[in-house]
Amino acid sequence: MPAKKDTSKMYAIGIDLGGQSIKGALVNNKGKIVDDIVVPTEGEKGPKHVISQIRILTQKLADSAARKKGHVLGACVATPGLIDMKKWIVRIAPNLPGWVDIPLLKECQKGFKFPFLLENDANAAAYGEKWIGTGKKSDTMIVLTIGTGIGGGLILNGKVWHGADGAGGEPGHINYDPNGLVCGCGNPGCLEAHASALGINRRTRMAIESGEKTLITKLIKNDLDNISPEIVYQAALKKDKLALRILDETGRIIGIGIMTLVNLLNPEMVALGGGVMKAGDFILKPAQDEFRKRGFKFLIDRTEIVMAKLGNEAGRIGAAGIVFSEINAK
Amino acid sequence: MPAKKDTSKMYAIGIDLGGQSIKGALVNNKGKIVDDIVVPTEGEKGPKHVISQIRILTQKLADSAARKKGHVLGACVATPGLIDMKKWIVRIAPNLPGWVDIPLLKECQKGFKFPFLLENDANAAAYGEKWIGTGKKSDTMIVLTIGTGIGGGLILNGKVWHGADGAGGEPGHINYDPNGLVCGCGNPGCLEAHASALGINRRTRMAIESGEKTLITKLIKNDLDNISPEIVYQAALKKDKLALRILDETGRIIGIGIMTLVNLLNPEMVALGGGVMKAGDFILKPAQDEFRKRGFKFLIDRTEIVMAKLGNEAGRIGAAGIVFSEINAK
Repeated sequence: MPAKKDTSKMYAIGIDLGGQSIKGALVNNKGKIVDDIVVPTEGEKGPKHVISQIRILTQKLADSAARKKGHVLGACVATPGLIDMKKWIVRIAPNLPGWVDIPLLKECQKGFKFPFLLENDANAAAYGEKWIGTGKKSDTMIVLTIGTGIGGGLILNGKVWHGADGAGGEPGHINYDPNGLVCGCGNPGCLEAHASALGINRRTRMAIESGEKTLITKLIKNDLDNISPEIVYQAALKKDKLALRILDETGRIIGIGIMTLVNLLNPEMVALGGGVMKAGDFILKPAQDEFRKRGFKFLIDRTEIVMAKLGNEAGRIGAAGIVFSEINAK
Repeated sequence: MPAKKDTSKMYAIGIDLGGQSIKGALVNNKGKIVDDIVVPTEGEKGPKHVISQIRILTQKLADSAARKKGHVLGACVATPGLIDMKKWIVRIAPNLPGWVDIPLLKECQKGFKFPFLLENDANAAAYGEKWIGTGKKSDTMIVLTIGTGIGGGLILNGKVWHGADGAGGEPGHINYDPNGLVCGCGNPGCLEAHASALGINRRTRMAIESGEKTLITKLIKNDLDNISPEIVYQAALKKDKLALRILDETGRIIGIGIMTLVNLLNPEMVALGGGVMKAGDFILKPAQDEFRKRGFKFLIDRTEIVMAKLGNEAGRIGAAGIVFSEINAK
């Protein structure tokens, strides 16, 4: 029998490329961050500059691994936007100026001996939750990341689901109401249009404009542009009726989305993360309740609806996890 | 190099267990039916009788293979209802009286030397379309079978998707309208409640009851219980305004369902089959149109929305295809 390979000094580099910052981490095979670097993205300086930032950060983390006498298995960049997974080109990243058809993998790889991988940021975060977060024991799970929009990812049989063109796994853009609020993607009634931060803001604004009395009016200093999920949450903590209703509705809308996801894919778990979920049980409880009312009886007790665990670290940890999964597997 | 295995005389037995009839076929590795037997289900005589019918039919098809000097690789029963895929028990099959917790695999297997497999009937039909039907060249496709209800199946990377508990792949029970018509499953607004035969009948009835003038009234001899998709289709062929609108709406509702499926899973193809789709372009065209209006721009040109090809043969052919796929793979 061959000796078991010593993986204790194997590291992966996970990089989360965001609109504001590039977050890199050196991660061991248990998902622990052993070193990390965060630099500003400076996206306004264009793709070349951003790629150079990624390369410098990667080199520093590789040097750190060498000082620890460790071996870097590979690096994975979790990138926003749409990746062509046949050619490893970022087709478009709306939050990064000038990012159209950028051969990110090739550019990052130059001069490095370990392999680079690319993954969509929401997918990487979902994989992080599966690897060492709330989905540790789940082989099939769905993560909904509820922030400005609703992102997320599908983990099917332990792997990120990409679909035929790498564009699969957009749970924010499933139908909620065919005649509903118009979404950023142009379609009326996506889940995202109703239950994201923007959806919460719009529904709150409509209620105030229609004359509902609420604490929120004071908290936003009478400026409707100041409405945010954070303020709605603050008002809910003070038992404001409208705020409680808005968050309850948000949960119920998400619960209906969960019903669609579960009836279609029968995952073991659906995990909810992202900034909006700071409101916790104000949203989680009605989401669970609505799912239980609507889902198949056979499935409602078999599906866990829980909070995601890794928060803002999910992207870079998940990216590192993908390195361990993909490169060990080869 | 080892000689290529001769598969020309390899057969699989595909069996489609329905409420009315049990349809069995001896199928070669190209998906061609070389012999077939159909017997009445006689479900009212209970599970034991039905299983005995399946066993007799299987033996006859095995004898037929022997006469052809062929080898039976295995048999697969496409069964309605919910299958426990860990214990291979049919948990419940609503259309078969007394079918609760039936150990179908074990009972069928007794005395046969080749292995038996079980698959849900809608999944088997979806696999048939992938194997030798309209999805021949697609590795990832979704089949919607629109009949009394809406069944279907997901083929992901060439395999039937089952989910964690074998209950995955119910595209009829995704949300269409959270305040919509109540579905057979109890949830208001499932795709099935609006766009199945029952959904068409209900929407037609509501329109007539609200006083709309239509040819349909004559075709149903003034008895609203006679409404059927077939009659609506007949009226549409005669350019009846209500009938045309009902079928157009049906297509648009299905198109919204397709948007959800495509944004979530990014398949290469969505195929529409089942009795309701006899109305052809009256439903297919508006479905394609609505999907193109609502789907991601990146995906609308990459996703084929087409008619399924195998009709009523899809179940037993798909069951046989699963034998070739699963047993050759082992």
